[in-house]
Amino acid sequence: MSKALGEFEIIRNYFARAPQGEGVALGIGDDCALLQAPPSGQLATSMDTLVAGRHFPADADPAMIASRALRVNISDLAAMNASPLWFTLALTLPSSDAVWLKKFAAGLLETAGQFGISLVGGDTTAGPLSITIQVIGHTQKPLRRDGASPGDSIYVSGPLGAAAAALPVVLAEREVSEAIRREAEQVYYFPEPQLTTATAIGKFATSALDISDGLLGDLIHICEASGVAAEVNLDALPIAPLVHQLAADNAIELAACGGDDYQLCFTVPEAAAGQINQLDLAAVPIGRLVQGEPQVRCSYRGRPWVAPSPGYRHF
Amino acid sequence: MSKALGEFEIIRNYFARAPQGEGVALGIGDDCALLQAPPSGQLATSMDTLVAGRHFPADADPAMIASRALRVNISDLAAMNASPLWFTLALTLPSSDAVWLKKFAAGLLETAGQFGISLVGGDTTAGPLSITIQVIGHTQKPLRRDGASPGDSIYVSGPLGAAAAALPVVLAEREVSEAIRREAEQVYYFPEPQLTTATAIGKFATSALDISDGLLGDLIHICEASGVAAEVNLDALPIAPLVHQLAADNAIELAACGGDDYQLCFTVPEAAAGQINQLDLAAVPIGRLVQGEPQVRCSYRGRPWVAPSPGYRHF
Repeated sequence: MSKALGEFEIIRNYFARAPQGEGVALGIGDDCALLQAPPSGQLATSMDTLVAGRHFPADADPAMIASRALRVNISDLAAMNASPLWFTLALTLPSSDAVWLKKFAAGLLETAGQFGISLVGGDTTAGPLSITIQVIGHTQKPLRRDGASPGDSIYVSGPLGAAAAALPVVLAEREVSEAIRREAEQVYYFPEPQLTTATAIGKFATSALDISDGLLGDLIHICEASGVAAEVNLDALPIAPLVHQLAADNAIELAACGGDDYQLCFTVPEAAAGQINQLDLAAVPIGRLVQGEPQVRCSYRGRPWVAPSPGYRHF
Repeated sequence: MSKALGEFEIIRNYFARAPQGEGVALGIGDDCALLQAPPSGQLATSMDTLVAGRHFPADADPAMIASRALRVNISDLAAMNASPLWFTLALTLPSSDAVWLKKFAAGLLETAGQFGISLVGGDTTAGPLSITIQVIGHTQKPLRRDGASPGDSIYVSGPLGAAAAALPVVLAEREVSEAIRREAEQVYYFPEPQLTTATAIGKFATSALDISDGLLGDLIHICEASGVAAEVNLDALPIAPLVHQLAADNAIELAACGGDDYQLCFTVPEAAAGQINQLDLAAVPIGRLVQGEPQVRCSYRGRPWVAPSPGYRHF
């Protein structure tokens, strides 16, 4: 699908119908989109690529691929306490497949509508299937990784391990009941960006990030950026029900090291912990930051615990 | 190069050294970059993907690939009369090749420095080589495609056809002298975004775009967006010297239909044409807009001329 072979038709047919939301002065169809930034605060931007066979099975439902691609990007906005505004899409496709494109576009625009984010541009090219999305959001109170201090409490925004437990099912490596299969697909393709939690904790939190590579693999980035060490009590980890159903024997490993959950990990000063606990959130305290070289030390059932590998299996 | 295999090292080693320019509150290394938009005007954004084997030879010099990838994106900003601010990079690589990455990053950051645009984020993934760049610029006077009227004069900002003439040399399909080969590479990998011309014509022009798919293939977009027809006198086309050296027999076809030159095509009201001609620009009037269904009619040596194919050969 080079430009000569129908790029303009694809854009016209499937993506130019995207509704234009807040701040979009000119959407798809010119050399650039024109955008009106909010008068105060800052813009937040992030970009993620999903490659077929690596981040999703090439034969997955195109609407589900689109959902996941956009949601994982919006999760980066949530991790920064930014509200979604606009996104651009670079879609590389092996061939111009109208059925696939129609499903993909429908899934993408439905997801965009749910999160109030406008598709404002992009590019389509021929090549091995991959999807790059770049998102722009707006924040009045950004949550960076470098604001944490010793003594801060560490929280996660909700249950962990579900996506790692779901992965063998999503890859069709494991046979399960239809109900479990649907739940696994839901977890994997429809991760929930934690925008509400981010807004609620915005004025208390000293740092935040989203857990895409696994709690321990991501928390170390807060330690490095803030110059602190972390002590995590794995007994406190909220474990997703799907983990107990699919991988009870490895529950702690999956919750501590499994990627793709897109919950937030954040820190708050000890004095604010009471206020966090009073918010109507699923967030759970799991440890605290201490002085020391950047590292994450874990305990489980009263003993030190070491992750079996630096990162758990990543699709 | 999944995240487990060194994404963080690649970012740290090669891209996080990117200097942070205007409006960058937080650059690479967090969930999002944080950006401060200028207080007035609009933001302009565009995104382009270059795929190895389609938009450049896979074995080309990585620094030249980087130059081309960033320049074609900045050209979209120029076409909108936007000045470059920030960009994000999605780099998909078959394997983590330190030598390739070092050269690519050096070429990218050198080009970024030339145009005063800051790398603020991105993603690296394993997969077939491709490069997606998304640019954000700022404009006080956007040049859209839909503002032209019958009677407007049509201009091109400079010589055409060079990139199409250079292509067989770039693809090593044609043997030429070392001097010509270097000139062809220069034309193909270092296209010049027409930012200066865009600024100069900003207050006069009624529409503009950059010529990436060939003059005739792109001018039709102005016709469609503005609801006008175009009459182009091909005898007036400025033809790049390289065309005469490499493809004299097809000079008009290459200048009229060859892609990848990244000159601007723009329109100005007849009354402003005198002012445009007084500016110190290489821009040349090549025709005018008339009432009618969107189409581009060409004449050459006093006769109607029809392009041999809708788009000329596109890599």
